[in-house]
Amino acid sequence: MKKIALLGATGSIGTNTVEVVTAYPELFQITSLTFHSNEEKGTVLIEQLNPKFVGVGSQKLKAELSKRFPTVEFGVGESGLIKAATLEEVDVVLTAISGSVGLAPTMKAIESGKDIALANKETLVMAGQWVMEAAAKNNVKVLPVDSEHSAIFQCLEGQKVENLRELVITASGGSFRDLTRDELKTVTLEQALQHPNWSMGKKITIDSSTMMNKGLEVIEAHWLFGTDYDKIKVVLHKESIVHSMIVLEDGAYLAQLGPSDMREPIQFALTYPDRLPIKNEKMFDLTQIAQLNFEPMDFDRFPMLALAYVVGKKGGAYPTVYNAANEIAATAFIDGKISYLKIEQFVQKAVDHYQETTEITLAEVIAIDKQTRTIVERWIKEEGRL
Amino acid sequence: MKKIALLGATGSIGTNTVEVVTAYPELFQITSLTFHSNEEKGTVLIEQLNPKFVGVGSQKLKAELSKRFPTVEFGVGESGLIKAATLEEVDVVLTAISGSVGLAPTMKAIESGKDIALANKETLVMAGQWVMEAAAKNNVKVLPVDSEHSAIFQCLEGQKVENLRELVITASGGSFRDLTRDELKTVTLEQALQHPNWSMGKKITIDSSTMMNKGLEVIEAHWLFGTDYDKIKVVLHKESIVHSMIVLEDGAYLAQLGPSDMREPIQFALTYPDRLPIKNEKMFDLTQIAQLNFEPMDFDRFPMLALAYVVGKKGGAYPTVYNAANEIAATAFIDGKISYLKIEQFVQKAVDHYQETTEITLAEVIAIDKQTRTIVERWIKEEGRL
Repeated sequence: MKKIALLGATGSIGTNTVEVVTAYPELFQITSLTFHSNEEKGTVLIEQLNPKFVGVGSQKLKAELSKRFPTVEFGVGESGLIKAATLEEVDVVLTAISGSVGLAPTMKAIESGKDIALANKETLVMAGQWVMEAAAKNNVKVLPVDSEHSAIFQCLEGQKVENLRELVITASGGSFRDLTRDELKTVTLEQALQHPNWSMGKKITIDSSTMMNKGLEVIEAHWLFGTDYDKIKVVLHKESIVHSMIVLEDGAYLAQLGPSDMREPIQFALTYPDRLPIKNEKMFDLTQIAQLNFEPMDFDRFPMLALAYVVGKKGGAYPTVYNAANEIAATAFIDGKISYLKIEQFVQKAVDHYQETTEITLAEVIAIDKQTRTIVERWIKEEGRL
Repeated sequence: MKKIALLGATGSIGTNTVEVVTAYPELFQITSLTFHSNEEKGTVLIEQLNPKFVGVGSQKLKAELSKRFPTVEFGVGESGLIKAATLEEVDVVLTAISGSVGLAPTMKAIESGKDIALANKETLVMAGQWVMEAAAKNNVKVLPVDSEHSAIFQCLEGQKVENLRELVITASGGSFRDLTRDELKTVTLEQALQHPNWSMGKKITIDSSTMMNKGLEVIEAHWLFGTDYDKIKVVLHKESIVHSMIVLEDGAYLAQLGPSDMREPIQFALTYPDRLPIKNEKMFDLTQIAQLNFEPMDFDRFPMLALAYVVGKKGGAYPTVYNAANEIAATAFIDGKISYLKIEQFVQKAVDHYQETTEITLAEVIAIDKQTRTIVERWIKEEGRL
């Protein structure tokens, strides 16, 4: 029985994780879970999963739920997340929570010897160096949940790292892949949320359309697999069937393919190195798909992808600035505060504005994350509508 | 330094092997080689590679070459092949020789503890059971050289065999893939030799067009990977970019892709589990290829593929009959003795004609191979032109 802490249980990854876990009650148990504010869905999960501990986003929510579920222990905020992630009996922490708030519980879980099933991108974007060092020191596995990184991880199984020439991350291109930059000027939120292949949350669907998501994946891949940025490529693959690839020293490509179903990488992170059938598996027949297309990425069309390599190579807190600025700007777009192209402009401006001259600590990175958010929020107020 | 016995040095696989080996003189050495009758090419190879032992097809050739190369030891026929394959210093035997004549030296090599880089299909089609048993007993690796089996082997690295759901062998469809069965009635040898993707020998190009080649690969895959026939699929993939795939229990596909270059699987069989750059590597850029197509196989269009599953499941000497009949019939077509569709008819007739009721020995299988050839040759004389 694998005991799981599920951070971010009510989101898209959380929901898929619950499906995977409840399909195999003899193998998996959710010992602790957290959610921020979705009381309705959270209540259903507590009833369904009967966790020992639940972390929530507010004292008010804790007070309400404590009355309703007197046998469950509750916590709030960061301390609740950390408690959920470090419970004695937990074997693996699935970090489906989004935002930089996922970083502290992940680090604490690693220090407590828990394996990490990683779906929180800030963990590696902000703190890749410290997280991977801590994981190595504590002999802890960091297993990717993202479909691209899971694909690469699956392809790398059994391959010697010195035989690796390149990682090739595939990109669907998002909802605006067929629009020119000129056509982007007038796009609406509704249009941006029409992702061609995956059903995901709003923020990640926007990030997919700006290719911020892919840029963050490049940075994550760098830390997860210890691969130089020059060896990480991105190709446009509209069908999202090939989830990603590796190229080996002799020129051979290994690719992982499958349906667009997040349950596969989630389940593999939990069963690794074993595999089990996905319950109610989506039918997948390559001959029904008929055609797979691959196109080179246009860095001029997707400047956020080009910028990912710049901030990744600079290192330090540059990726944090890049991510934090985007979180604020993309959310402002979702909230109708800025137009679509302003997202990219604010991210670029934040990166240009940031100056780093000496090596910094993780605490400083976290501070820079907060500062960047404040600065970009101010910019949005000042010039968002311009 | 890996010391290699190269059986069938002057053929297509042999030539590619020499390219691989001579690209890394510090790693590989051809200690022994054999060729049948291509004196011109064989002489060049002896000069180039300076082998210790050379097996040839006739006493006459041995006599001539012995004079010219007094320091090289020569052998003839089966005993020459066996000597080449079992030389004390040889580490790995690359069986690029075609036909059932490859079987005896391969078995002797396995019994002498040599690893096998397998490019001779009769080894597994005729004697899969005995060969794999002997390999296990002698703790010998049987490494595939065929691009499809190498692809599957590469995908299976690091995967647990109990997690395997299916093997998916890709088929280019050969030179007549776009013709109906009716249109096949009048095709010529010249048309049949126009393989769309690979430059190979005549016989294998014909086998590719009848899908006999793919049928034999299904049978080989059964023995090589210990996979039930029901778990071995074939899909039409005209681009020959995806060399083959595996499907795992959770529905994930792993695929091996690359250019149509036999040096990759040959070199991997020799460097396994390491990989090295291919010298003068063929440029391969997936975004230049742009599109990959997959179609279901039409068993009515390609009855030899359907028949492979029948003979494979029957086991015993049925695959041997299937292969032997095809060797005679395909050669007769190449020699202008029969029309194209007669190849399939003679193979089907030979399989229908053969009856097996009890378990048989390897010696009996070898005898049935010879008998089948004699019978089909007689049929061709009697009714080839009908």
